[in-house]
Amino acid sequence: MKRIGIADTTFARVDMGRIAEEELKKMGTGFKVERYTSPGVKDLPVAVKKLIEERQCDIVMALGMPGPESIDKMCAHEASTGLIQVQLMTNTHVIEVFVHEDEAKDAKELTWLAERRTREHAVNAYDLLFRQSRLAANSGKGLRQGFDDAGPMM
Amino acid sequence: MKRIGIADTTFARVDMGRIAEEELKKMGTGFKVERYTSPGVKDLPVAVKKLIEERQCDIVMALGMPGPESIDKMCAHEASTGLIQVQLMTNTHVIEVFVHEDEAKDAKELTWLAERRTREHAVNAYDLLFRQSRLAANSGKGLRQGFDDAGPMM
Amino acid sequence: MKRIGIADTTFARVDMGRIAEEELKKMGTGFKVERYTSPGVKDLPVAVKKLIEERQCDIVMALGMPGPESIDKMCAHEASTGLIQVQLMTNTHVIEVFVHEDEAKDAKELTWLAERRTREHAVNAYDLLFRQSRLAANSGKGLRQGFDDAGPMM
Amino acid sequence: MKRIGIADTTFARVDMGRIAEEELKKMGTGFKVERYTSPGVKDLPVAVKKLIEERQCDIVMALGMPGPESIDKMCAHEASTGLIQVQLMTNTHVIEVFVHEDEAKDAKELTWLAERRTREHAVNAYDLLFRQSRLAANSGKGLRQGFDDAGPMM
Amino acid sequence: MKRIGIADTTFARVDMGRIAEEELKKMGTGFKVERYTSPGVKDLPVAVKKLIEERQCDIVMALGMPGPESIDKMCAHEASTGLIQVQLMTNTHVIEVFVHEDEAKDAKELTWLAERRTREHAVNAYDLLFRQSRLAANSGKGLRQGFDDAGPMM
Repeated sequence: MKRIGIADTTFARVDMGRIAEEELKKMGTGFKVERYTSPGVKDLPVAVKKLIEERQCDIVMALGMPGPESIDKMCAHEASTGLIQVQLMTNTHVIEVFVHEDEAKDAKELTWLAERRTREHAVNAYDLLFRQSRLAANSGKGLRQGFDDAGPMM
Repeated sequence: MKRIGIADTTFARVDMGRIAEEELKKMGTGFKVERYTSPGVKDLPVAVKKLIEERQCDIVMALGMPGPESIDKMCAHEASTGLIQVQLMTNTHVIEVFVHEDEAKDAKELTWLAERRTREHAVNAYDLLFRQSRLAANSGKGLRQGFDDAGPMM
Repeated sequence: MKRIGIADTTFARVDMGRIAEEELKKMGTGFKVERYTSPGVKDLPVAVKKLIEERQCDIVMALGMPGPESIDKMCAHEASTGLIQVQLMTNTHVIEVFVHEDEAKDAKELTWLAERRTREHAVNAYDLLFRQSRLAANSGKGLRQGFDDAGPMM
Repeated sequence: MKRIGIADTTFARVDMGRIAEEELKKMGTGFKVERYTSPGVKDLPVAVKKLIEERQCDIVMALGMPGPESIDKMCAHEASTGLIQVQLMTNTHVIEVFVHEDEAKDAKELTWLAERRTREHAVNAYDLLFRQSRLAANSGKGLRQGFDDAGPMM
Repeated sequence: MKRIGIADTTFARVDMGRIAEEELKKMGTGFKVERYTSPGVKDLPVAVKKLIEERQCDIVMALGMPGPESIDKMCAHEASTGLIQVQLMTNTHVIEVFVHEDEAKDAKELTWLAERRTREHAVNAYDLLFRQSRLAANSGKGLRQGFDDAGPMM
């Protein structure tokens, strides 16, 4: 039985953790979901590491919604750097799902974006764990999570 | 008996360490507070690591007030990066409570902000240690520390 | 028998992995290619580390096409930082082949650039593994991958 | 007998190492000073690590004067990041004393600033090693090194 | 017999490796030079680490010529960060000799700058290994490599 971790925050304005869990469970069985909520994105790296090392997760989704200010961009950058470090310390994939408040034109689009990006990355997490050939088949296909795929160049 | 570390600075213009200790003690018993003061935010990462490794803290609050200049922003970034590294090296949460001098419109608001953010993050530290379910119940609720909560999108 | 890893993404809009494999195979024998596809450039560092540690690669090409926005530049920076860390953790070269969408004036040139840079870096990967003297002979020659060589100053 | 390391550079335009040593010796006995000079601020992290690990220093002062250009700011940032890493690798405080050439309005003020900041940080280094209660008594007091203290908010 | 490593690139437009080796050999005996050429500055950190760990170098010169674009500045920053990490992982000095294409007003000056900076840093490398007292005697003297020394303030 594999374990998929979901680390989310109380800072986010959409319940991305619930959405991720729901989407993962749609995709199949053979895994257990482990949840972990911390205050903000800068708390995610250690939360993810604890999910991997203390709760034996085989892959983790790290969900966050950085604010629109430059200080928020810096927090997101620091968190991302930490999430990459965790992966290198544990040889375990962590799918970062960050939705920046200024990516969408209004609250409605932002809510839609957070949900769709989370769902599409839940599929990526599932694929990395259970069906890597599906990712291989999509090399260089210009896939995006949230907004429409860019598609291949040629 | 758990230990909660509080690392603060002589650079800060508000005694955030005292406020954090006061708020933590309001919340309950079952823990001891360990204090550590160093000059500035760039000294916090090693101070925090020493609190965790030499004084057995189970969680630490890292308190600082970066100045308003671009050099201060860079110092804060370097400190934050170090604080994330400490967490990954120790599998221990460190709640960063930084109040930037240019976040508030005047000295009165800045004082108020430093106090309120410190108190609200003291609750987060307590919750991470003793009642994670309270954080889980607030996933995606748009909580903020200091200024008003942004609230959930929907 | 040496192993050359190729880590690519579903985000890229050109199938750089296929091109890299094709070019490597033109160059000679004595090695096996290991492929790994993950969603985006921030997933490359751990993918590369797994290629080195779990699939015994002696060198890896890390292929990606960051988008044109400032958030994409930041993602590329975080990925690059992680790729350098992997190399230091494993004493193994990782040839980063990133093609930024805004490096070319249109889709046609971008496609051409991605292919040519990938092919030229495949030669670099091969040379690092099998014929370092060829690199040594080109010290300070102003070589570029993709666009024309700058050439030596004098 | 404790050891206090002083790492300085040939790049700096003020002999900060001499000033630091002089100030430290004014403060008391019970320690030995270890000196190490390298070319520039980017050489400081390893110099400091060698002072700690090869010459058994209990704390180190890292002294530098980054130039005024943006490339100099980046060098200082890289050096600072490295100095924080050293501290985390060794659980030892390193007091960074950087004086940026553009912090002062002329050569006279810059010389004054470099000297005063060095002296005030020498006291911090001494306090971290021998009298931490003095730092604790100054939590949140808005202390500065070089220019005047900002003072507490209230 | 000491070993001095020289890591250079095929990207550079001046044969800095040859110049470094020539200058080192002018300075004395008692050491052997180990050369390593890789494609660009982002390949230098692992090349340097291999020179230290696999070819037993006691110090390494890392030579590169980053281009003038902002992407080149970022590459140089990532490389520098990696070079500092290598030093901390090995307790070995690495003298970074980077010449940015936009530091000089034309090709002639750039060629001159690359040569002179390389030669002056070769002396620094030699001094760090064989005669540290010479560096100590120059603490705070405002030395520069390439362009003229800034000199001491007073």
